[in-house]
Amino acid sequence: MINVLFAPSQDRLDIYAAPLQAAFAQADLNVDLRAAFPPEEVDYIIYAPNSELQDFTPYVRTKAVLNLWAGVESIVGNQTLTQPIARMVDHGLSRGMVEWVTGHVLRHHLGMDRHILGQDGEWRAYIPPLAQDRRVTILGLGELGLACGRALNDLGFPVTGWSRTAKHDDQITCLSGPDGLTQALSQADILVLLLPKTSATENIIDAKALAMMPQGAFIINPGRGPLIDDTALLAALDTGQIAHATLDVFRIEPLPKDHPYWAHPNVTVTPHIASETRPETAAQVIAENIRRAEAGDDLLYMVDRQAGY
Amino acid sequence: MINVLFAPSQDRLDIYAAPLQAAFAQADLNVDLRAAFPPEEVDYIIYAPNSELQDFTPYVRTKAVLNLWAGVESIVGNQTLTQPIARMVDHGLSRGMVEWVTGHVLRHHLGMDRHILGQDGEWRAYIPPLAQDRRVTILGLGELGLACGRALNDLGFPVTGWSRTAKHDDQITCLSGPDGLTQALSQADILVLLLPKTSATENIIDAKALAMMPQGAFIINPGRGPLIDDTALLAALDTGQIAHATLDVFRIEPLPKDHPYWAHPNVTVTPHIASETRPETAAQVIAENIRRAEAGDDLLYMVDRQAGY
Repeated sequence: MINVLFAPSQDRLDIYAAPLQAAFAQADLNVDLRAAFPPEEVDYIIYAPNSELQDFTPYVRTKAVLNLWAGVESIVGNQTLTQPIARMVDHGLSRGMVEWVTGHVLRHHLGMDRHILGQDGEWRAYIPPLAQDRRVTILGLGELGLACGRALNDLGFPVTGWSRTAKHDDQITCLSGPDGLTQALSQADILVLLLPKTSATENIIDAKALAMMPQGAFIINPGRGPLIDDTALLAALDTGQIAHATLDVFRIEPLPKDHPYWAHPNVTVTPHIASETRPETAAQVIAENIRRAEAGDDLLYMVDRQAGY
Repeated sequence: MINVLFAPSQDRLDIYAAPLQAAFAQADLNVDLRAAFPPEEVDYIIYAPNSELQDFTPYVRTKAVLNLWAGVESIVGNQTLTQPIARMVDHGLSRGMVEWVTGHVLRHHLGMDRHILGQDGEWRAYIPPLAQDRRVTILGLGELGLACGRALNDLGFPVTGWSRTAKHDDQITCLSGPDGLTQALSQADILVLLLPKTSATENIIDAKALAMMPQGAFIINPGRGPLIDDTALLAALDTGQIAHATLDVFRIEPLPKDHPYWAHPNVTVTPHIASETRPETAAQVIAENIRRAEAGDDLLYMVDRQAGY
């Protein structure tokens, strides 16, 4: 019997219990899944950033901490957590992110809002350029950034990607390093932020970065709230340097009612929906990682604590 | 010297003259392009549905009529027009259509309007299903229908297509005939209309067809206005049988200011922008067809007058 502690809230257990049990059965794992165990009896911990569990010291026999989310910034610095950590790379999450990013890139590309908000009887013909003439830049070329970039390139957009370390892709022009960032921003008619939050990426979109972008560019942030200097973005929206920002993540969530983003006519707030883990597909990843650990194989999607993701 | 009459308006000639001259030069064609010629001296006619030219009788030496648009319903019944007619199949038009259709399918799939129209400080988490669980049906599997269906399937949507005559495609479930239409409509969570306008397709989306669709379905019409029985659609929108209709084409254009579509909260009117021909790419198709006719080769995209498209 393998003891698996489900550390996120009871609400989430209600959603995840059935998909997890199904995935364990399919992987031939004999699992006891519970929201509470004596710590010394726990073999694996399923974790979420908002779990109450913060002191991992008593979990002496735990072999791995399996995160339900892609982001691990809230646990990677926890000194009591010495066990291997795996990020979630959920097929459903990736597909959902590709759909959300592709949808909002096309929305801004096509100028849809003028029609959705302008049903006043005026016949306003506006022919957008073709995708082949609209340059998209993606900051962050992890699983999600690559998947979004390829889908956008399939639709005809020329896509440039930037990452900390150099990468190569057949469909995406890959840049890296400080000079690469300047180049990537200078041709970002539409900018998509999919970087992890680390000390190096916080406020990466500041006044200087915004000024490097083409005038009237669009920003789409489904990554992490702190990637953006909010004051600088609001100033760039006021001058028209940035035409519109569609933001799914924020420093404080839910975004407070009195935050200027809500009232700004050129900001669309969405409630952290782009990167939602899907229980069915996520449960399969958790089960596969437990199967691997039990078989002595390497875990999928191991976190590199040095890099912070 | 080949005499080519440009029959659409002078406004359009201003837009098309340079791209056409460039395309003729590239195809090594020695062309005299004018908005007026003595009819008996005209070798080819570039045509648009709104051209003043309606009596083709005096154009005794004209070898082909080359339409600038995909739709030919306004000329195919003209008894004086005995020359071969070619439709426009413009790479730019196809790409633009794919972008418009994919964008609006994703808009409805993701429920974007609730965010675009609802920036009131409320944090409304709504997680849409994945594309794999949203069925798209496309009526019409010509160049445009196939291109849209494949792009949507690439994004994960299961796509069913329906056409008058049976077709096959690796990515699209192809149906045909009356029973096929019933089946295609019954699984249309999102319905895209890309049929030509013929006597057989007029009012194909009537009260009976709308009732066959899943409750709360979406309709997207970038094809032809008369495909829809407008009164029946408005009734289905009022009951919620149809959740939303995004309409780009209408029986009368521009859509009159007092038409109920403008005021309906669940209708988005767009001003016939999905299928706009792009001058650069369209000019290349015109030049290629003149080159073929001069060389005695078959024309591209010949109209079948019997079928009406």
